[in-house]
Amino acid sequence: MNTTNKQIGKSISFIYRKKQIYINAKLCEYGIGCSEYMYIISLPLDSSVNLSYLSNELGVDPALTTKVINSLVKKEFVYKHRSENDKRSFEVSLTEKGKKIKPIIRKVLDEWMELMTKGMDDKTKESIIENLEMMVKNIKYR
Amino acid sequence: MNTTNKQIGKSISFIYRKKQIYINAKLCEYGIGCSEYMYIISLPLDSSVNLSYLSNELGVDPALTTKVINSLVKKEFVYKHRSENDKRSFEVSLTEKGKKIKPIIRKVLDEWMELMTKGMDDKTKESIIENLEMMVKNIKYR
Repeated sequence: MNTTNKQIGKSISFIYRKKQIYINAKLCEYGIGCSEYMYIISLPLDSSVNLSYLSNELGVDPALTTKVINSLVKKEFVYKHRSENDKRSFEVSLTEKGKKIKPIIRKVLDEWMELMTKGMDDKTKESIIENLEMMVKNIKYR
Repeated sequence: MNTTNKQIGKSISFIYRKKQIYINAKLCEYGIGCSEYMYIISLPLDSSVNLSYLSNELGVDPALTTKVINSLVKKEFVYKHRSENDKRSFEVSLTEKGKKIKPIIRKVLDEWMELMTKGMDDKTKESIIENLEMMVKNIKYR
């Protein structure tokens, strides 16, 4: 067993789960459920995004993406429509309600990241980003 | 908006979600559902652990921990019993079935970490651990 690898995995999982608890508690009052915020935050204000592309970018199973997007459609945060370029695929875009909630989610995420990176200088943060991106690259298309 | 912080959060979330997809697919055949593996892997082979402590260590909401543990009790991977020191709290320990599945989960987790840290030397990994631990420390008791 490789203790170093184990420690990396454990810390990443811990950080992610604590983030989910924090974000969900803060966004609960806006009717945004678990995992829904990340779709809203990933959608641009002025254009639509292909559903498969979104799934891939977020690292989420396509079936789960469909489920979450359908919930967001019901809550009127996003529109879902057939792609004009490829009628077999779907695209999503933010509704006016979705556009209004996006900066609120951004603020909550920024607050969380401030808490998490407290006491870390820019050089340390840059090094973290670089290393995390190396890991993302290794697993992105798996 | 702080782009650096944003990038750290985005990468950590991506890595966590891809890991969940990989682990769930590999453990599906053993009847281990989403998020259940991390409880089994965290329990020692020869003693029991307090439920609140486990929740805190994993960074999981106590209500969710209770739900997952109850599912694992039903599947006979863990026992749940009242603490001898404090009759108001619960402890959990691995059953024989749980003890048998633990090394299988460990192997899947190790395979994933090997994939993820491909091409990274020990010094880089040590630096990642150090930085992630700084973040864990910042948020652990929030």
